[in-house]
Amino acid sequence: MAMHTEHRPDTGAVIPPDVDDPNVNAVRFLAVDAVNRANSGHPGTPLDVAPVIYRLFTRHLRHDPADPQWPDRDRFVLSGGHASMVLYGALHLSGYDITLDDIRGFRQLGSKCAGHPERGLAPGIEVTTGPLGQGVANAVGLAVAERLLAARFNRPGHEVVNHYTYVECGDGDLIEGISAEACSLAGHLGLGKLIAFYDDNEVTLDGPVSWSSSEDITTPFLAQGWHVVRLGDVDDFEAIDAAGTAAQQRTYQPSLIVMHSHIGIGTPLHDSHKAHGSPIGEQYAQIARQLLRWPHAEFVVPDQVYQHWHDALADRAAARVDWGQRFTAYRSEYSELAEEFTRVMDGRLPSQWPTRLPSFLPDGDPMATRVALGHVLNALAADMPELVGGAADVESSTKTRLTEYEDIRRGNFAGRNIHFGIREHAMAAIVNGLAAHGGLRPFGATFFCFSDYLRGALRLSAVMGLPVLWVFTHDSIGLGEDGTTHQPVEHLAGLRARVVSLPSFELFRQRPEHERRSILPPELPAVAAASPFGWSEFADRVIGMTTFGASAKAADLFPHFGITPDAVAHAVRTLRAERGAPTQRPQ
Amino acid sequence: MAMHTEHRPDTGAVIPPDVDDPNVNAVRFLAVDAVNRANSGHPGTPLDVAPVIYRLFTRHLRHDPADPQWPDRDRFVLSGGHASMVLYGALHLSGYDITLDDIRGFRQLGSKCAGHPERGLAPGIEVTTGPLGQGVANAVGLAVAERLLAARFNRPGHEVVNHYTYVECGDGDLIEGISAEACSLAGHLGLGKLIAFYDDNEVTLDGPVSWSSSEDITTPFLAQGWHVVRLGDVDDFEAIDAAGTAAQQRTYQPSLIVMHSHIGIGTPLHDSHKAHGSPIGEQYAQIARQLLRWPHAEFVVPDQVYQHWHDALADRAAARVDWGQRFTAYRSEYSELAEEFTRVMDGRLPSQWPTRLPSFLPDGDPMATRVALGHVLNALAADMPELVGGAADVESSTKTRLTEYEDIRRGNFAGRNIHFGIREHAMAAIVNGLAAHGGLRPFGATFFCFSDYLRGALRLSAVMGLPVLWVFTHDSIGLGEDGTTHQPVEHLAGLRARVVSLPSFELFRQRPEHERRSILPPELPAVAAASPFGWSEFADRVIGMTTFGASAKAADLFPHFGITPDAVAHAVRTLRAERGAPTQRPQ
Repeated sequence: MAMHTEHRPDTGAVIPPDVDDPNVNAVRFLAVDAVNRANSGHPGTPLDVAPVIYRLFTRHLRHDPADPQWPDRDRFVLSGGHASMVLYGALHLSGYDITLDDIRGFRQLGSKCAGHPERGLAPGIEVTTGPLGQGVANAVGLAVAERLLAARFNRPGHEVVNHYTYVECGDGDLIEGISAEACSLAGHLGLGKLIAFYDDNEVTLDGPVSWSSSEDITTPFLAQGWHVVRLGDVDDFEAIDAAGTAAQQRTYQPSLIVMHSHIGIGTPLHDSHKAHGSPIGEQYAQIARQLLRWPHAEFVVPDQVYQHWHDALADRAAARVDWGQRFTAYRSEYSELAEEFTRVMDGRLPSQWPTRLPSFLPDGDPMATRVALGHVLNALAADMPELVGGAADVESSTKTRLTEYEDIRRGNFAGRNIHFGIREHAMAAIVNGLAAHGGLRPFGATFFCFSDYLRGALRLSAVMGLPVLWVFTHDSIGLGEDGTTHQPVEHLAGLRARVVSLPSFELFRQRPEHERRSILPPELPAVAAASPFGWSEFADRVIGMTTFGASAKAADLFPHFGITPDAVAHAVRTLRAERGAPTQRPQ
Repeated sequence: MAMHTEHRPDTGAVIPPDVDDPNVNAVRFLAVDAVNRANSGHPGTPLDVAPVIYRLFTRHLRHDPADPQWPDRDRFVLSGGHASMVLYGALHLSGYDITLDDIRGFRQLGSKCAGHPERGLAPGIEVTTGPLGQGVANAVGLAVAERLLAARFNRPGHEVVNHYTYVECGDGDLIEGISAEACSLAGHLGLGKLIAFYDDNEVTLDGPVSWSSSEDITTPFLAQGWHVVRLGDVDDFEAIDAAGTAAQQRTYQPSLIVMHSHIGIGTPLHDSHKAHGSPIGEQYAQIARQLLRWPHAEFVVPDQVYQHWHDALADRAAARVDWGQRFTAYRSEYSELAEEFTRVMDGRLPSQWPTRLPSFLPDGDPMATRVALGHVLNALAADMPELVGGAADVESSTKTRLTEYEDIRRGNFAGRNIHFGIREHAMAAIVNGLAAHGGLRPFGATFFCFSDYLRGALRLSAVMGLPVLWVFTHDSIGLGEDGTTHQPVEHLAGLRARVVSLPSFELFRQRPEHERRSILPPELPAVAAASPFGWSEFADRVIGMTTFGASAKAADLFPHFGITPDAVAHAVRTLRAERGAPTQRPQ
């Protein structure tokens, strides 16, 4: 117990000078008020990170609230999704379609302002974040997507794809292993247009970061080839601007800008984890209004603040108009490319496809399904230039190489094969970023068993409904000798599927009854599956196993676990007998 | 395609001098022969890492094959589980109960020598490894366990717990994010008796490490507070010994010993990823026999090699005899402690427990189930000194603090609360290590939704059957406003729960039919669940939802998704009507 007491920070509110800028405070107090009203949420981080969000949205981010889907906009990801109100506030003040009423409805049913930002609920939310570390890896994917599309579509004198990806992240994001994986790959690929702002407030939900971590988080970034800048306090606008500009100019490596900040600034919970995950309450909000010199009532933003944001964004938005003119020039010179660019950014498939799918006839030589998959992938790749992807160091086993194309690597994004390395979780979140960017149909591949390693990102892929192709090979004890550690058991049941390109209970249920009956007629009594879990809905007898597998030849494993043609036949006969049907075919 | 060609290494076999030690070659060729015989497996790493395994087992590891369960043995983890044959070979040569026939049966049904090492199949296998990175984090858990037990049981002049934890790992292990998480915590806790040997062979399954990574893997370790030593080639015995001894003496920080090695050494696949995951074949095995000067037939190990290993292990084993004498002295002075030590290392629960479980009466004030869980955990903690654990930065939300005990921290392992930090995956694998060590009943806690982040380790927990208590709170849309990113949907179905301490289809099925009927009688027609998946086996009507949830108050969410008492009642009435039973209670 002593430790808790020792670490407990001061309860007095400490206000550095110059943190009373009304254009920042508007973001801060929209967050404070919304969290208080919802009586739920995270006020501490919005209070501390508001200055950089303000500066990014009004000075650095090239975006236009009038056209949130502008293809060449800079992407912004709030990886610390719990600070969602800081994003909603900035989007509202920028003029995106988030009203004060939406903000008043923060965290309530039907509001655009969900507890954590959700792609699709409101314009300006590029990805759904909240589970920590995902946004950082999504941003790596967004930045890779920009490079891939630039390599494909830009022509001399015509830079139709040329934008930055910004990500705000906190200690939690960078402590998660997925970030180490993703940032390592970002450095490896030299993603010079990826700029991360790291909000170093030294506090996590449970307490000070020092309770669980004593490393310098930035050192690995140096080893990974990042440009690292450490600012003083987050509210030094000039320093933010200078660091941002320097990062934009650092074209050959991604940038990490470390900002020291004070969670819960302006409140008695300043620098305390108590500011992190709970409303600060009415009384502390009043104290903060005095200390930060924000005399306005709840949810009131003075006109001059709106005007300031509007004016500041004018030249940002002008860039979109300029791009439109440049795209017109591009179209007149490269009409087919321009049409293709529009097609892929709209997410439309080619008008004529697939044209080259191979056929697999039953009288051909036996072929592993993953080999067939490789042929299909390659056929699709020829028809769909937007198809890119790779594997987590199992390209050779999953057969997912696009054989006619190069590897993607630092300085050369003309290829279409990505070596994700042994980084399943980052791979999945990066693939999500590739899809979220638009213009690409990405795939990610690993052994089905290792879907366990990437499930955090896989779920978000499904939540966002992203057009990602997940390739999970080695999908049963049939993989044999690698044993229990590599044999998926109930992974299919655990995923259901809209998620994966595999037979799906979910899709099956959606079919009309006559079609379901035609596939699984009532007189069909048994279904064989590696794991019986979940099949009872559809089958009267289920043949399967209930352990984690074993290491042996596949040919030995299936009989060992009783998954055999004979067992199926026996189950059928028994059930037919129970039903009074003949158990044998007529002689 | 150009890149593949550029990166393809020489195909000529290059043999550095002094790699023909027969005591090393015995390990190498048992692996080559077993993989060839199985026609499946990973020969490359055993070839390159054999020297350090030999040196560790015969010079450094304090172990005794005659008593594999000796509580104070040094722990050894082969994190790169695909190199399993190097472990089986070393265990065989050391005199553990793994025969040449077992090795001949490598990867076949029923063999102790599974494709990847499996705890429980043979003595000397501390943990099941294969999914990369797990073993590194397990080793962190084993090392924490040693410190916890030392703090609890050692007395002045009586060091009954005092051993090292060694782990062998490769590029794949350290590239995985779980390692970054686990090694950060190891540095934070100053685990001076954790020694990692990193086999830096610069090759992964798909190709050179340089295809997907360009960072210096060791730099983050320096930032995390590790002692890092870089050796030359792995076959320099003197350098291995010196580095090992220095690491053992570095009591205040964990050690990473980096060994440069050549995958597939002695074969034409030297330094190539082609040596990684496939048998090298008979012809290359013959070449290797010539180049490495190993004239013996398949599976033949000369007597003098056995004799050398036996002699070298004699003083290792002597340490166990010495420990036995010291434990006798300890018992005579601290009989109760000695008895308690034996109890917890045997995995037995206290003879009288639980003695202080709280009661929760229906007429009491409403209480969140996680608050009740916290009370139960704390009551158990009083009865069970072996109960230790923590949360991934959600201690305050999961209510898992053991309130009467200190935090575990660098230099003080007398506490029982571990701040795992925002590292779910490492937490789970570390908890597995705590349990695998023996002497502890660990728990790990996070929100149920984030079980997705730790599923890789959770599965191994179940595969190994470790006595771990998993605490997953916030188990439905009932958590409310945090929204889809935090609301578990089908996670219960995805886990089935022998894994978690939650209602379990699996356990339910194991109960006798009369008991199942008493809980779910045939006349009970409906079950309400957050997700309907999997319930059809037990219920005729299932009430649930099929989306990923939403951000709103729990009280709004349940009716929104139609999960209400009325819906249940309606389902019951409808079904009873269908069955001809009265739909209303008698008036």
